[in-house]
Amino acid sequence: MVWSGNKNTKKIPDIVIEERLPKYLRALTRMQENGGVERVSSEDLGKALNYSAAQIRKDLSYFGRFGKQGQGYDVKKLVQRLREILGLENKQWNMALVGVGGLGRAIVGYGRFAPQGFKIVAAFDHDPAKVGKKVGTLVVKDMKELGDTIKRENIQIGIVAVPASAAQQVIERLEEAGVKAILNYAPITAPRGKAKIQDIDPVLKLQSMTYYLKQDDQIGKK
Amino acid sequence: MVWSGNKNTKKIPDIVIEERLPKYLRALTRMQENGGVERVSSEDLGKALNYSAAQIRKDLSYFGRFGKQGQGYDVKKLVQRLREILGLENKQWNMALVGVGGLGRAIVGYGRFAPQGFKIVAAFDHDPAKVGKKVGTLVVKDMKELGDTIKRENIQIGIVAVPASAAQQVIERLEEAGVKAILNYAPITAPRGKAKIQDIDPVLKLQSMTYYLKQDDQIGKK
Repeated sequence: MVWSGNKNTKKIPDIVIEERLPKYLRALTRMQENGGVERVSSEDLGKALNYSAAQIRKDLSYFGRFGKQGQGYDVKKLVQRLREILGLENKQWNMALVGVGGLGRAIVGYGRFAPQGFKIVAAFDHDPAKVGKKVGTLVVKDMKELGDTIKRENIQIGIVAVPASAAQQVIERLEEAGVKAILNYAPITAPRGKAKIQDIDPVLKLQSMTYYLKQDDQIGKK
Repeated sequence: MVWSGNKNTKKIPDIVIEERLPKYLRALTRMQENGGVERVSSEDLGKALNYSAAQIRKDLSYFGRFGKQGQGYDVKKLVQRLREILGLENKQWNMALVGVGGLGRAIVGYGRFAPQGFKIVAAFDHDPAKVGKKVGTLVVKDMKELGDTIKRENIQIGIVAVPASAAQQVIERLEEAGVKAILNYAPITAPRGKAKIQDIDPVLKLQSMTYYLKQDDQIGKK
């Protein structure tokens, strides 16, 4: 493979892909939209993201040369290249939602998925009282139809919004049906399986901060 | 300070506090609730969380001795101690929500905050059409009342559910009002300020997985 500019064939650390590149893209897109920024230095991008300029230069160097010394990055080109790298260029990713309770309904109503190329095209529940009812523009399907629908609709991403007790089984069924990536809103850590899994648990995030709040409280009392 | 059992005065890495301890607590609580598990080895806890046993033993050693060689950890005691460490013991944390659009309403309706000791006690919006209306059991207040309410209601945590364009200013106002921790649902990276901030952005999580999906696609086409 000849890919000019990319001399770096080292394995790219997961944290670059999973944490930092999406944040670079988000910050650069906002710079474009808000201020019409055309060029940005690694220093300024770093400031916007609480990273060092060196970190940014190193991360981007995995994918080729984007900037010229002293001129900064061309924002439009960098956005385009990051979208390509992350698999977001000219592509819609179809998603299936499992679990149409309050949380599932909120997920269907979340306004930022579709504009970013992520479309929920099917919703499932095991509760007969919910099957056949509408959620947004979708008609809730029975879990029995999961496998067939995923194949027919070319669904590659699953969203899990069921209670913790059901989550493990739902994740396995999604994996069996061929889903390669799962956004898991259930409060469990799924064992490593066939799919990539990313968890969203706001309670964990809160608990990660209360440790520090508690320290402040104790200092305040002294 | 005399604190028996804790001989370790090294600084505890942030990743232990912010990522792993809350996950240990979540997994142990589930073991208690589901199977009535009384003792667990670092190996089994590791398996449930995709961590090594050595990692778990090392993390917990920062806070004292919890297990006896060959007998595993006493689940009930470890849960209790983790709750103390994380500042969750016998305590309710009061939270203020800013932004009562679709996302904000979903956050008020989210069932897992209150049982875990996190209570939304006030909701704010800058839109006069929303102020005075109800969201859940709360009456939406005007942003003008933010500072006074935070002091009066002893609110230490803010939840930001406003659009990206307003988020920076809202975060600053929460910090000025004395909030020490912020759960940020707006798609921005806030600059480091006075408060601890944790972000929740499901689009970033999806984008962190599409890189790998794209690789699979390309392999599939070869």
